[in-house]
Amino acid sequence: MAKLRITVTLKGSVEDAEGQSVAKALKLLGYKNVDEVRTGKVYRIKLKGGDLSEGEEFCSKLLSNPVINDCKVEFDED
Amino acid sequence: MAKLRITVTLKGSVEDAEGQSVAKALKLLGYKNVDEVRTGKVYRIKLKGGDLSEGEEFCSKLLSNPVINDCKVEFDED
Repeated sequence: MAKLRITVTLKGSVEDAEGQSVAKALKLLGYKNVDEVRTGKVYRIKLKGGDLSEGEEFCSKLLSNPVINDCKVEFDED
Repeated sequence: MAKLRITVTLKGSVEDAEGQSVAKALKLLGYKNVDEVRTGKVYRIKLKGGDLSEGEEFCSKLLSNPVINDCKVEFDED
């Protein structure tokens, strides 16, 4: 049983409105040292067998849009 | 400059409809070995100074609902 953790984030060149909202909210709460917030989605996938390359396929076929997203696949240690 | 990675997921006891949809879609794409998918949000936060305990405060004050969410704070290595 493999456990993958796939993180889908916006590319650095794409504006992240949600992240900007969170940064603004944290500053309003008094955390003036917040510099930047970027958001993303995480998928924790349990597989019978399988490996990282299968995770890459999940990214390209379903979970991410390669025009605007970066996708990172790793083994889930939790 | 600290970089935190905060992952907000649904607690194990809470049904994850989005995760179930992704699992179903992956199976329809032919990946019959997919057992379970759980989804979550990830926040990558750049801070001037700051440490993990500040990340815990962000979780409890803004980013998560303790009734349904688990929140994990770690240093971002990327």
